[in-house]
Amino acid sequence: MSVTGPQGFLAAGTASGIKESGALDLALLVAAAPTGEGGGGKARPVPTAGVFTTSRAPAAPVLLCRRHLAATGGRASAVVVNSGCANAATGEPGAKVAARTAELAAAHLGVPPEEVLVCSTGIIGQDLPFAPIEEAMPNLVSRLERSREAETAAATAIMTTDTRPKQTLVSRAGFSVGGMCKGAGMIAPNMATMLAFLTTDAAVDPKMLQAALAAAVEPTFNRISIDGCTSTNDTVLVMASGGAADPVSPGELTEALTEACADLAYQIMADAEGGTKVAKVTVTGARSEEDAVRAARAIADSALVKCSLFGADPNWGRILGAAAVSGAAFDPAAVSVGYGPIRVCEAGRATGHDEAAVRAHLEQHDVEISCDLGAGTATASVLGCDLTYGYIDENTGRS
Amino acid sequence: MSVTGPQGFLAAGTASGIKESGALDLALLVAAAPTGEGGGGKARPVPTAGVFTTSRAPAAPVLLCRRHLAATGGRASAVVVNSGCANAATGEPGAKVAARTAELAAAHLGVPPEEVLVCSTGIIGQDLPFAPIEEAMPNLVSRLERSREAETAAATAIMTTDTRPKQTLVSRAGFSVGGMCKGAGMIAPNMATMLAFLTTDAAVDPKMLQAALAAAVEPTFNRISIDGCTSTNDTVLVMASGGAADPVSPGELTEALTEACADLAYQIMADAEGGTKVAKVTVTGARSEEDAVRAARAIADSALVKCSLFGADPNWGRILGAAAVSGAAFDPAAVSVGYGPIRVCEAGRATGHDEAAVRAHLEQHDVEISCDLGAGTATASVLGCDLTYGYIDENTGRS
Repeated sequence: MSVTGPQGFLAAGTASGIKESGALDLALLVAAAPTGEGGGGKARPVPTAGVFTTSRAPAAPVLLCRRHLAATGGRASAVVVNSGCANAATGEPGAKVAARTAELAAAHLGVPPEEVLVCSTGIIGQDLPFAPIEEAMPNLVSRLERSREAETAAATAIMTTDTRPKQTLVSRAGFSVGGMCKGAGMIAPNMATMLAFLTTDAAVDPKMLQAALAAAVEPTFNRISIDGCTSTNDTVLVMASGGAADPVSPGELTEALTEACADLAYQIMADAEGGTKVAKVTVTGARSEEDAVRAARAIADSALVKCSLFGADPNWGRILGAAAVSGAAFDPAAVSVGYGPIRVCEAGRATGHDEAAVRAHLEQHDVEISCDLGAGTATASVLGCDLTYGYIDENTGRS
Repeated sequence: MSVTGPQGFLAAGTASGIKESGALDLALLVAAAPTGEGGGGKARPVPTAGVFTTSRAPAAPVLLCRRHLAATGGRASAVVVNSGCANAATGEPGAKVAARTAELAAAHLGVPPEEVLVCSTGIIGQDLPFAPIEEAMPNLVSRLERSREAETAAATAIMTTDTRPKQTLVSRAGFSVGGMCKGAGMIAPNMATMLAFLTTDAAVDPKMLQAALAAAVEPTFNRISIDGCTSTNDTVLVMASGGAADPVSPGELTEALTEACADLAYQIMADAEGGTKVAKVTVTGARSEEDAVRAARAIADSALVKCSLFGADPNWGRILGAAAVSGAAFDPAAVSVGYGPIRVCEAGRATGHDEAAVRAHLEQHDVEISCDLGAGTATASVLGCDLTYGYIDENTGRS
């Protein structure tokens, strides 16, 4: 199970026709007990928190989510998500489509429009048509279920260039966290073209939920990078049904949310556009965590490092070169660099390592790059991937 | 002509064996009147200025150049340049090879070692062997000439993945500026893996020369980007022989140096690793020049924009998306975007442009992207290129 794993959530996915291919493109996630239970099937507002793109040109649905969460004090009953069109750079008409989508779902679910959030993902700058959404909504609502099939249909309907749905479930004593996400390109620090939807049955207030989500996103979704490009639509939402009997501490909730986010973030990296490898870049010995993150991001984002990964080429000078322009403070004579268990650079110079052993590590799907700056004790990891012919194929507009 | 175009300079290039291929890999540029003139052939110190990488791990030769220019108060007699090895991340042994190279050339030219500058370019982290340099030096010095052949040998000897030598000559009333450079990858704002050597016969003092060089580099070499990767070895040097009779104003000199740097910068972009196109990204309507540069760089550096260029795909949402995370201030509802003469986005929305006309523009070698932020009057341009299969081929270590 994933988003409908925790008690109190229903999901559905359908094909509305926004995608010309006829693939699933419209998803609905609702806070409601399953039919047959008390209040079964009826949508109801639950504490909901969100983290959004840092882009200066956020898409219409991002603005709507922020506005609605502010109006409700951090509560929502449902989220409608479409793929195939980002509804970004669409001006006032785009804002209207987002608002009408919320109103439409609200009317079908019997809740106020402010309790409905809307997310979109796809091409920027194209108008999102409202007609297909309007036509598909009754069918979508009728399909709402707490089932593996329904939640997988929802996880599939939010995909763009993703090759597979991405879902997770983290179980803890007394509560659980479910999640689904999409994202395969335009993925960068500080949110990416990624949408993630988390659910939990933990009983929490909106403020604690927001704090736990922010803490969970920072070391997970904010530390992955496919191509250094940040999107206009990035959104992570979490809804908390309160169905679990026992109270949950902020620490327990944050830990479970972080595990769910980390799992989803890894799934995004493993499905990166054209990617053949996931590289975990760990920087140690930094003066501050900020410096560690900076250096790790610079290494993971470097086009040259990414090409080396694709070629399984132990060109560690590129790692040092990337760290050295990251803004992180260090003395190059104190730096060491390693691939997996093999140290290739020590005190800023080549160790004379076994190149075949390094190549063997680099030929694996999961690669580890370590860089100790020798400047302190702070540490951070960022997940990256390789740069391949496939990434170019995906993004030339020719495929 | 190029570096030996202005009076008072000799050049030479040879194959020392640093490159296993046997290609030219050692260049020498000397301030000296040609043989047959007064003091002919004899090296002599002239005002010399330099701009270097901002990397925190500068290569040994970069440290040597800075040290020598400081010791001489901005004067030099000669520059020795090798390709095939960057002499970066090579510790104390690397520093010794750089120092011995300067001493060797100085002994042959009859000048103090501090008057010789050294530059290297190639792979990071490998030791630079001194023996080939020592062996080749007598031959290299004997080949010094003021001729198109000699300067082209020098321009060829500094090449790494470059497919052709890059040279320029700018003639002004009373003086001229010559130049050569190398660079095809690891090219980014704030210097790239690029080396550029400029000469002029203008009579100037070291301070004015340094100021003119800094001003010339900023809108040229600092506004190109192939892959966003900044090198450990970037160096731009200019030597002024003073051979011209008439005085030159700082403005005249800066203008001529800027033209020479712009020509060389364009040549670098036109020879970008795997590149099939040069894109001039011009941002207008920015609140400040800093904002304009930020937005233009973000657009030129975006992997998604670069893929769109390769595919001649008018996906302008990626341009807006890149500008929106650049840190430049603007209201997305006020932005317009264009390809060549065709406006594709106005007031933050699609104009409903002629897609075939845009594609036709994008199919050209020289592409223009414009983005008006609608936030002020400042402007800046950055040269970028496309991201192609060829770039990956060059950088996987497999080719």
